[in-house]
Amino acid sequence: MKQRMLIVQITLLICLLALVCPVLGADPSGSSTYESDPTTAVNFVWVLICGFLVMSMQAGFALLEAGLTRAKNAANIMMKNMMDFCIGSLGYWAVGFALMMGTATGITGLIIGLNGFFLWGNAYDVSTIEMWFWQMVFCATAATIVSGAMAERTKFSTYCIASLIVSAVIYPIYGHWMWGGGWLSQLGALDFAGSGVVHAVGGFIALAGAWLVGPRVGKYRKDGTPVGIPGHSITLAILGVFILWFGWFGFNPGSTLAATDLRISVIAANTTLAAAAGGVMAMLITWWKYGKPDVPMTGNGVVAGLVAITAPCAWVNPLCAVIIGFIAGAVVVASVWFIDWKLKIDDPVGAISVHGVCGIWGILALGLFADGTYHEVTGLLYGNSALMVAQIISAVTVFVWAFGMGAIMFFILKKTVGLRVTDREQIEGLDIGEHGMSAYPDFVQSEPVVKKGE
Amino acid sequence: MKQRMLIVQITLLICLLALVCPVLGADPSGSSTYESDPTTAVNFVWVLICGFLVMSMQAGFALLEAGLTRAKNAANIMMKNMMDFCIGSLGYWAVGFALMMGTATGITGLIIGLNGFFLWGNAYDVSTIEMWFWQMVFCATAATIVSGAMAERTKFSTYCIASLIVSAVIYPIYGHWMWGGGWLSQLGALDFAGSGVVHAVGGFIALAGAWLVGPRVGKYRKDGTPVGIPGHSITLAILGVFILWFGWFGFNPGSTLAATDLRISVIAANTTLAAAAGGVMAMLITWWKYGKPDVPMTGNGVVAGLVAITAPCAWVNPLCAVIIGFIAGAVVVASVWFIDWKLKIDDPVGAISVHGVCGIWGILALGLFADGTYHEVTGLLYGNSALMVAQIISAVTVFVWAFGMGAIMFFILKKTVGLRVTDREQIEGLDIGEHGMSAYPDFVQSEPVVKKGE
Amino acid sequence: MKQRMLIVQITLLICLLALVCPVLGADPSGSSTYESDPTTAVNFVWVLICGFLVMSMQAGFALLEAGLTRAKNAANIMMKNMMDFCIGSLGYWAVGFALMMGTATGITGLIIGLNGFFLWGNAYDVSTIEMWFWQMVFCATAATIVSGAMAERTKFSTYCIASLIVSAVIYPIYGHWMWGGGWLSQLGALDFAGSGVVHAVGGFIALAGAWLVGPRVGKYRKDGTPVGIPGHSITLAILGVFILWFGWFGFNPGSTLAATDLRISVIAANTTLAAAAGGVMAMLITWWKYGKPDVPMTGNGVVAGLVAITAPCAWVNPLCAVIIGFIAGAVVVASVWFIDWKLKIDDPVGAISVHGVCGIWGILALGLFADGTYHEVTGLLYGNSALMVAQIISAVTVFVWAFGMGAIMFFILKKTVGLRVTDREQIEGLDIGEHGMSAYPDFVQSEPVVKKGE
Repeated sequence: MKQRMLIVQITLLICLLALVCPVLGADPSGSSTYESDPTTAVNFVWVLICGFLVMSMQAGFALLEAGLTRAKNAANIMMKNMMDFCIGSLGYWAVGFALMMGTATGITGLIIGLNGFFLWGNAYDVSTIEMWFWQMVFCATAATIVSGAMAERTKFSTYCIASLIVSAVIYPIYGHWMWGGGWLSQLGALDFAGSGVVHAVGGFIALAGAWLVGPRVGKYRKDGTPVGIPGHSITLAILGVFILWFGWFGFNPGSTLAATDLRISVIAANTTLAAAAGGVMAMLITWWKYGKPDVPMTGNGVVAGLVAITAPCAWVNPLCAVIIGFIAGAVVVASVWFIDWKLKIDDPVGAISVHGVCGIWGILALGLFADGTYHEVTGLLYGNSALMVAQIISAVTVFVWAFGMGAIMFFILKKTVGLRVTDREQIEGLDIGEHGMSAYPDFVQSEPVVKKGE
Repeated sequence: MKQRMLIVQITLLICLLALVCPVLGADPSGSSTYESDPTTAVNFVWVLICGFLVMSMQAGFALLEAGLTRAKNAANIMMKNMMDFCIGSLGYWAVGFALMMGTATGITGLIIGLNGFFLWGNAYDVSTIEMWFWQMVFCATAATIVSGAMAERTKFSTYCIASLIVSAVIYPIYGHWMWGGGWLSQLGALDFAGSGVVHAVGGFIALAGAWLVGPRVGKYRKDGTPVGIPGHSITLAILGVFILWFGWFGFNPGSTLAATDLRISVIAANTTLAAAAGGVMAMLITWWKYGKPDVPMTGNGVVAGLVAITAPCAWVNPLCAVIIGFIAGAVVVASVWFIDWKLKIDDPVGAISVHGVCGIWGILALGLFADGTYHEVTGLLYGNSALMVAQIISAVTVFVWAFGMGAIMFFILKKTVGLRVTDREQIEGLDIGEHGMSAYPDFVQSEPVVKKGE
Repeated sequence: MKQRMLIVQITLLICLLALVCPVLGADPSGSSTYESDPTTAVNFVWVLICGFLVMSMQAGFALLEAGLTRAKNAANIMMKNMMDFCIGSLGYWAVGFALMMGTATGITGLIIGLNGFFLWGNAYDVSTIEMWFWQMVFCATAATIVSGAMAERTKFSTYCIASLIVSAVIYPIYGHWMWGGGWLSQLGALDFAGSGVVHAVGGFIALAGAWLVGPRVGKYRKDGTPVGIPGHSITLAILGVFILWFGWFGFNPGSTLAATDLRISVIAANTTLAAAAGGVMAMLITWWKYGKPDVPMTGNGVVAGLVAITAPCAWVNPLCAVIIGFIAGAVVVASVWFIDWKLKIDDPVGAISVHGVCGIWGILALGLFADGTYHEVTGLLYGNSALMVAQIISAVTVFVWAFGMGAIMFFILKKTVGLRVTDREQIEGLDIGEHGMSAYPDFVQSEPVVKKGE
């Protein structure tokens, strides 16, 4: 109740603010920006439309997660995915963008940015807001990754708070280090479209969350062996994979931030080739290992290929993109098995493996395969070891930062508002417990079939 | 039978026409248009791709409507959404575009346009057809809004006729008044992307339709209290919300009709912020009022925010966009309750509240919050009352026109071909009654659970 | 096992290759291409984004196919659609593109191209890779058409092999004849966006496949009359239609390969008008013939209109586009009936009729209706018979090539690895037999209702 009143008060305060402040802005109409450089038109088109595609990935994540979990939690999962985008974009507007892409003087600027809050003042500018839009859809991608790994047992209210913190603080600070002029970028570390900044950050916050919230009821037998809990709609899950693949064509090629940089065609090609290779490899391995090609794992292989190519996409050639994808497809199968069987952390959709582990692989692949044809970025295989060192540092950093901050955040939430719904609610389904409804009231539902897990 | 033969005859007549007429056109190949202004290339890319995104909203509306209604009517709803786009685009090609965007001399031109029928003659021109494409996807959006409010009890054949009339006559005439040089635009009324032209028009035609077709069987108890009838797939409904959100990035930013106008980045940011704010507010209110955050209402809150920002999106700053969205999220919850409990009009998906009521809010918000940074459009809060007066006039006009014409149309249809299926067909489901099929024959369906409505 | 090792070995060999070869390329960074012609920026944006939309059609095909078949095969169908894109894009990268768009001297060049394998060497160039990306999404479209016609009874492994052969060999060679400078293009045959190259090729390979794999268990009664087997989700099927329609706005307008060619607006308009007309006509015919408007057939009518307008879209006016669509809507209904009742070939989703037969109609419609306003391409109705002759030759060629090569391929596959799953597996569902899972484990499924087929 207190919280609710606080929100209302903040809202009213903001309203008041809008009415008393004069409206300033560097170039809010965009006319002087366009006049000083007419190529901004085609570049704005490119960045905005690619940003729209990135936004569509929210639907892809929602479907992939909902499809791979049970019908009794489907409304809750769709709601979480909708709300992390709503809350995340507001948090990134109010605070996150300023921390990440703002500037600050001296050593502070290596750690954090400090201007552009609420897109107010000089940030009311067509170029700044174009950048905000682009960075916001990326931030929302990182935030939504957490949802999947913690699915089917996390309190909805807690998840909303976590989404806000991730979008407003945890994600932007690492983002500042890499993309906002912070210390990692000063070291020479690179991440073209965010294997690290977006996916590894999301994946390792998810690892902390899945670990602290504990496994779902029935996930592990008394002897500790995991039980496979099949998803309720493979059709929707694979539709989610297709939507993610589609949206990734915004994610990677759009990260040039300019269409006058024609490397965008190579980036698009690398993106799709890595995805295809990831899918093929995951399929072949499951086929070989389990006797039948596994559909959800193949879908995860596609996404793993996409995650892995995200950092190096601009700097490698198509052949290396295929190799990166093949390896990602193998890595994701191994990682899912390892997390499920060895770490015994319950990740219903494989988000930690796909985004965290393959995100790290992407950072390293960039240090390995960059071929020197674009902006002279050259990797280990082509004779430059300095980049590889920087990439390893950034990989370690992203793990420590994301897992560490995620663990602190979820630990505090666990001790305060609580992290996990009751077992009874979990068995009944979070749709009833959290939202008082059923996602599919017209269909007769069975107790979900539990199969021997892999 | 007669009707069918008439359609065949008209078709054959058109064919004949095509063969005897010489092919004229202002610039059908586009080469002279491009040569006289090379920025047309980037502007065409912008407008067409944004138009494609707007078209994708048809899928969003279809899923939102189908998801929020029952499984036994799902095929009918998808069919209605498919056909209103098919029929609507043909009607807008044949007649609507000429009435709306055509020109006419003198006082006639304030009311109606009169050239460009069938895109024939001088209308066979790349710029005119670009404009047609853009306006057609908007027209189709208005038409499809009606489908949701009248879902689960309207005769399919009647709905097809109504779609044609809306697309060819009712929508275009109001559109001419605002966007085609008609009297509202002469008064100084503004509507950037159609809170009024598209959404309020669709929403109030829907109000007339839902009122005249009457509530679904079982919607109201004998004492007049409404019964909540839950939708059959929340997953698909929320997927619909995501698709609408995605498509709206075409709807609003594309309405500059030019990428050389860099304000597009501000418009995109405003669009997403209002949507996020609308979703958050609707969630908080339902949480506070019913004890649990309501998933479909939160989805409607997102769409309400999008509808409300549609008119003012180009002329307000991001902070005001957030405020507009918050208010829209509150308005939609109140309006759904009011229409359900007080007006006792059965709107299965909340379309009247989302599009009609929040459309009006959008028109007024523009008169209130326009900050003068873009084309010097300034609202009441920044010291200009003239715009607000024009906006109030346009708001009254859109209600009177859309509700009035909708009521006349549906009244005539009710007295002639009939508006409503039999109660027996309704109980059995319109999929069987109208199309002789089931949308989900492989699944065992329960009688839909009826919960106490809000 | 052998096959698997071979794949691993090939992968390793490729990896090795990447490390020993120096990285060459004509213009891998794109800077000199941009400098020599700045309009490449807007043209790259146009082609790439349109290519992304074409890629989204993969999701549309997957949903249309899955929705129109039974729940017990849904995971298998989604997997097939995912894998034909994965395998297809890799096959087209390794081999297909070189055969299709590569060059070769003398008579060889009329039949086949021979450079650009693996996008290696001079093919590492932003313009070449832009072209590869564009052609790859088209190739994938052709490949995925086969999936639907052979649904619910084809071995998954065999399907993967067939996808590879189609993408790497069958599709590219016909593509070379029409678009790569081969003999059909030398004859003067035209196909703007691939009614023939993509859809008829896919459709007639599908015909060969559906014929050789035989009908599904229970499809034909002892007296030879077909049984209608309803699909398991009309909602998803029609969502698939909407996604295809959306993606087609990339397919057709993008085929200008340049945004500086403003004819793109006319192409977009023609595309949507033909789709709308196809849907309306299919609906009217089923309404008239069966008494009720048929939902899946109307969806197929929309796609039929899209297929038919694909070849002529750039060269006809909107009125002719409507006529072409109306005729396509009629043709598809007749063809589905003919294939089902007379040829007695079981095509669960109507892919042969939609893509094969209407693809042929599109090729011929171009020869008939081209109006001379764009690049002076003129058809029979406007006084030029030479084009019509070339179109007829290309129509015959596409049928002979695609059906012939498809038949040879599937015959060899049938005699070696086998084409068809066991009847027992078919009855149980391919999800269990091929993938060891169920697509919808949380829902109680009925035996699918079998209705009297049309």
